[in-house]
Amino acid sequence: MHRIAFLLLAVVAVAGVFVFRAPVSGRADQAAAPVFVTQIPPGYRDWRLVSVAHEEGNLHSFAAVLGNDAAIKAYREGTLPFPDGTIIAALHYVRVPSAENNKIFGQAQSFVPGAPTNIQFMVKDSTKYAATGGWGFGFFIDGKPVDEAKMQSCFPCHAQEKARDLVFTRYAP
Amino acid sequence: MHRIAFLLLAVVAVAGVFVFRAPVSGRADQAAAPVFVTQIPPGYRDWRLVSVAHEEGNLHSFAAVLGNDAAIKAYREGTLPFPDGTIIAALHYVRVPSAENNKIFGQAQSFVPGAPTNIQFMVKDSTKYAATGGWGFGFFIDGKPVDEAKMQSCFPCHAQEKARDLVFTRYAP
Repeated sequence: MHRIAFLLLAVVAVAGVFVFRAPVSGRADQAAAPVFVTQIPPGYRDWRLVSVAHEEGNLHSFAAVLGNDAAIKAYREGTLPFPDGTIIAALHYVRVPSAENNKIFGQAQSFVPGAPTNIQFMVKDSTKYAATGGWGFGFFIDGKPVDEAKMQSCFPCHAQEKARDLVFTRYAP
Repeated sequence: MHRIAFLLLAVVAVAGVFVFRAPVSGRADQAAAPVFVTQIPPGYRDWRLVSVAHEEGNLHSFAAVLGNDAAIKAYREGTLPFPDGTIIAALHYVRVPSAENNKIFGQAQSFVPGAPTNIQFMVKDSTKYAATGGWGFGFFIDGKPVDEAKMQSCFPCHAQEKARDLVFTRYAP
């Protein structure tokens, strides 16, 4: 009994979220099903800067985009596609006016990050994430992965950026 | 003659821009005159993220604010005033719409950094920069320090942020 429980845990650990997607009986298209990033890569807040971004529309969002060492190296050397091991993190915040800064500047001009909204990751592993262009997508709110329906929305949009290996953010010098 | 030229060069090297401010005869208030940061601190582009910022008004500016190890440590631990050795860098870019992103998103919502405009530094050394609240201010365009009149504009504005040791930018989690 303990051995079965251990094996089941091992399967869960190896398969990650995938085990929650596939019926117990398995599916013919398992190999092509997307695999998502459900663990926050450790140490991401210490990574180096790729760039910043601001999305309006319904988002009103500020982003700091950071990259692990493999990402920064590839960006700086212009390597495309990004090599396996690359991880890019987008830290999103509500973009809010800074009353404090505006008072000092004497006019309404200053916008700063407010509350964090979500953190998104792209993890390059051309084998593990073959179904989604070699990239695993992760989307976390309050440190928890969002539901799969929301995770699904990442790839179709990024897939349109084919010329730059599905990565929107360019390196800011 | 060579020896005199060497000595003059040495004076320039030690005094930095200060030598351009003081009349040859010296001034009684030299000790209180502002000293500016005229060398770009090496390696700043590899520093960790403090936050991002966006200034409208006449600036239309995006910033990534980075800090050296002393800065990041002080920010994370809430240390005020910042200790000597702290350096904070603000990398400024023109904030421009991204036609490429907007096409994919299907609406005008995306803003990204365009051309770099300037890089500003605050270097904490409570002795060297005593005349300006313990902070040396540096302002560089295309890698060159701006003229002193422009450097002079940093301190009076930052000095209004007394409660946070003259630093506008807060740490983004």
